[in-house]
Amino acid sequence: MHYLRQYLPILDWGHRYDRNTFSNDLIAAVIVTIMLIPQSLAYALLAGLPPEAGIYASIAPIVLYAIFGTSRALAVGPVAVVSLLTASAVGQVAETGTAGYAIAALTLAFLSGGFLVLLGILRLGFLANFLSHPVIAGFITASGILIAVSQLPHILGINADGHTLPQMLRSFFGNLDQINLITVIIGVSTTAFLFWVRKNLKPVLKRMGLSLLMADVLTKAGPVAAVVATTVTVWIFGLADKGVKIVGEVPQSLPPLTLPGVSPELVGSLLVPAILISIIGFVESISVAQTLAAKKRQQIDPNQELIGLGAANLGAAFTGGFPVTGGFSRSVVNFDSGSETPAAGIYTAIGLAIAALFLTPLVYFLPKATLAATIIVAVLSLVDLSILRKTWGYNRDDFLAVLATILLTLTMGVEVGVASGVTISILLHLYKTSRPHVAEVGLVPNSQHFRNIHRHKVETDPSVLSLRVDESLYFINSRFLQDLIQARVSEGSEIKNVVLMFSAVNEVDYSALESLEAVNQRLKDFDVGLHLSEVKGPVMDRLKKSHLIHELNGKVFLSQFDAWRELSSHSQNRDISK
Amino acid sequence: MHYLRQYLPILDWGHRYDRNTFSNDLIAAVIVTIMLIPQSLAYALLAGLPPEAGIYASIAPIVLYAIFGTSRALAVGPVAVVSLLTASAVGQVAETGTAGYAIAALTLAFLSGGFLVLLGILRLGFLANFLSHPVIAGFITASGILIAVSQLPHILGINADGHTLPQMLRSFFGNLDQINLITVIIGVSTTAFLFWVRKNLKPVLKRMGLSLLMADVLTKAGPVAAVVATTVTVWIFGLADKGVKIVGEVPQSLPPLTLPGVSPELVGSLLVPAILISIIGFVESISVAQTLAAKKRQQIDPNQELIGLGAANLGAAFTGGFPVTGGFSRSVVNFDSGSETPAAGIYTAIGLAIAALFLTPLVYFLPKATLAATIIVAVLSLVDLSILRKTWGYNRDDFLAVLATILLTLTMGVEVGVASGVTISILLHLYKTSRPHVAEVGLVPNSQHFRNIHRHKVETDPSVLSLRVDESLYFINSRFLQDLIQARVSEGSEIKNVVLMFSAVNEVDYSALESLEAVNQRLKDFDVGLHLSEVKGPVMDRLKKSHLIHELNGKVFLSQFDAWRELSSHSQNRDISK
Repeated sequence: MHYLRQYLPILDWGHRYDRNTFSNDLIAAVIVTIMLIPQSLAYALLAGLPPEAGIYASIAPIVLYAIFGTSRALAVGPVAVVSLLTASAVGQVAETGTAGYAIAALTLAFLSGGFLVLLGILRLGFLANFLSHPVIAGFITASGILIAVSQLPHILGINADGHTLPQMLRSFFGNLDQINLITVIIGVSTTAFLFWVRKNLKPVLKRMGLSLLMADVLTKAGPVAAVVATTVTVWIFGLADKGVKIVGEVPQSLPPLTLPGVSPELVGSLLVPAILISIIGFVESISVAQTLAAKKRQQIDPNQELIGLGAANLGAAFTGGFPVTGGFSRSVVNFDSGSETPAAGIYTAIGLAIAALFLTPLVYFLPKATLAATIIVAVLSLVDLSILRKTWGYNRDDFLAVLATILLTLTMGVEVGVASGVTISILLHLYKTSRPHVAEVGLVPNSQHFRNIHRHKVETDPSVLSLRVDESLYFINSRFLQDLIQARVSEGSEIKNVVLMFSAVNEVDYSALESLEAVNQRLKDFDVGLHLSEVKGPVMDRLKKSHLIHELNGKVFLSQFDAWRELSSHSQNRDISK
Repeated sequence: MHYLRQYLPILDWGHRYDRNTFSNDLIAAVIVTIMLIPQSLAYALLAGLPPEAGIYASIAPIVLYAIFGTSRALAVGPVAVVSLLTASAVGQVAETGTAGYAIAALTLAFLSGGFLVLLGILRLGFLANFLSHPVIAGFITASGILIAVSQLPHILGINADGHTLPQMLRSFFGNLDQINLITVIIGVSTTAFLFWVRKNLKPVLKRMGLSLLMADVLTKAGPVAAVVATTVTVWIFGLADKGVKIVGEVPQSLPPLTLPGVSPELVGSLLVPAILISIIGFVESISVAQTLAAKKRQQIDPNQELIGLGAANLGAAFTGGFPVTGGFSRSVVNFDSGSETPAAGIYTAIGLAIAALFLTPLVYFLPKATLAATIIVAVLSLVDLSILRKTWGYNRDDFLAVLATILLTLTMGVEVGVASGVTISILLHLYKTSRPHVAEVGLVPNSQHFRNIHRHKVETDPSVLSLRVDESLYFINSRFLQDLIQARVSEGSEIKNVVLMFSAVNEVDYSALESLEAVNQRLKDFDVGLHLSEVKGPVMDRLKKSHLIHELNGKVFLSQFDAWRELSSHSQNRDISK
């Protein structure tokens, strides 16, 4: 039973469900449903799919996440960045608008779902840590810019495509002659309205005496108002005949049963993008889930989250959707509207299913420019270039990783961008550890504490070279220490003993062991002692299994002070502990 | 001038060259030349190229290395592992024996040379450190096995191919009916003879009163004796007509001027193998060069070595060769025969050029089985499975990396093998650092030293939680510490202060900084102090630029003992420094 509960969190809250919880969940579901309709249509457009795919992608996934996920507030469905990644990946294997395109999107969701479930079962959630905060921030910012630019043509009523900024801009300026004035008026005014709602409506409503929750909900309903107003306008004035592009016919149907493609060719070309989408989606989702859980002191299990998101994506793959993940704005609305359990998600799914069955004729005259405006306003809040300034001030390596991620995402596409960001941050880290900081240390007067001779006023002894090695010793830096000690010892002929202070050495791998053995041999030839101090438990456990400790041309001291007391000729006079 | 000398080490020793050095270099050159003739033919065979390519690949490269390289003893030319890598890479783009195959080999040398020079100019020699000792050992061992197995068919006189052990064995057993008895007799007896020479000749010769050097040279000349004996046998008894495969016609010519291919397709498919060959060749070469230089207390400059090896490979590309590097056996012979400067290499090149011009008709009847025997005996000395036992006893991660390298090299080919070895060792290292060891520490009685409460008898205070973080804090483990501290503090309600002992923290990157800020905020909410101790200079320099230090809900102490003295209620009673 405990085992089952681990994989089915629904068993945990399901049997405590009562009328009060039900009504709270239901209210939240109604609010979220209304907000999700335009959002789902918009993200389907962004992913290059027909509008109904966005609604379908919000139904089965939301239910499956409610069963398998651990967050009580997370709302799963299409989100901006994942939709962009979908468009980029699927655009490489099929033409927009073809049946092959839709099947490729299903396949992508299927592969991504399978990969997430696999990671969850293997409990490999920690892999998400490979994306550093700055790389994520840079990637999200660059994606926000790409998405906003990709929607500009819809605002102007022109055709344009491309997956990188240069491609998009070239296509945009090349087609500028197709501009449609009525579309521009609708697009620009909707965008301006939505920006105004986002920035100014909430304070206005609060001043009017509305409750915080109510003000919040009305603010979030801005896109719904824009959808209604522009749809009605287009319908009344017959603007569709004047060149305004509209959503058009959307089938009235529950999510269809669909099958992802299984041809090895298709799977092969979508596998890497699917892995990328999985990891980015997971990182985005888990950070939202953890933020919301912390507010109610609830726990999120990252590995179970993988299974929940994986199930959601598998669900999307079989019901006409495309890759999904936990979205920030929908989850926050869900949380703020008072949802208490994942059941709220199930009610939302029911609401969307009703919309899919009965309300789709109402969006026939919805202009695409309106959807584009809602996307632009939503994603521009993702753009935050301050990460560049923050990392520049703190750490040039992080800055480089962010800058590379942003520039490569914009110019080479999302996949190259994020992959480069991860690779660069790992390589910079390895490079840093390949040239460890090694400080010569001396005794801080009136203490037993040793610090860098160049930074602190300390006591030293020319016959004892005390080196604090500020890095774990492993293959990438094993030669470095060997060369450094040899250089130091051949310089200083007075040196009789070398003490390596291992307080910062958290690992000595086999390559480093061989290097230390070589150092030991070399120092033996020079008739210089080699000692270790402050070797940590786990490192010592391992060293005891090696030849090094038995053949060491010196001793292992518990503390650097013990080593100093025994080896330094100066220390006798002022040994404070005796 | 200094700048020129850095890039042209020849200027360093050239003007001090005298008659004595000349005669020593000349003697060494004669010995090396004789040894190199069969070796060059054999490695060309291994690389799938006509025999003369092996000699050409030893001429221009040796001269160019003499000009640009920094080792005084290193002998550059075809070596076993690089020849195997060449066969594997070129075999994927062309058929053995075709003109395309030879051009692909030139292209591979060209790309590899260019890459090495580039690395050298960018001073990126440290990249070779990405290959850990165990991965190199595993790779060399597996390559030795692959090479030996690849030569078995020649010993039996059958045809067989393949680049992985399963392919080779399948092909071998499939063609076993082609076996040629005379070839088997030549092959097996030559192999046995060479093994005997290698194992037993030196002691015999020494007992006969020969000098160590002479005994050594004669032992190394074993392959030459085998070549002469089997060639004469085949010629006298007309065995070539009885199915013994011979080397046949080798053109009498100086190295021709050749051009590598430049088609983007060819370059594209050889680029990755070329990078791999460069790095493996460089690692092999530099370890030989460093071993020999240490014996004479000479210095090797890794970045200049890259340029030297790169020039050698570019030379090979334009003179009918294939990828080369510094070889172990040829360099040792060169060193042992008393060569003093790289001029010895130039004389060797002249010797080989004479051989290429006048002696090639003499190897017409040389059986391929003899060459195969010399290869087998040479490479079996590379096979050393003891690295498996050694790493198993010391460190399971290193063991895993070796095992994977060996198994994948044997079953999936050399490129997959070594790439996986590198990837696995990096991932295992990152994984290890992703879950850092964090020790709760207490005061070792009668000292100012703090150690793990679970390993040492120490004094503690329930109101102070002192955690020694045994890893640099960076993106891969930043969440880990955050979760750990939160869990510890919510467990122990007595805790009033948390001290993070940063003695082993060598880096705090931006992701980790954000995590620490979150920890600080959380502890502030719980009304628990957060303190740091023993923060190293470079880490503190950086933290001072952040908000963390200014908003820290506590202090930064020079030493853990200072923190203890101020925060612990127990410490007042027995403060030893007052």
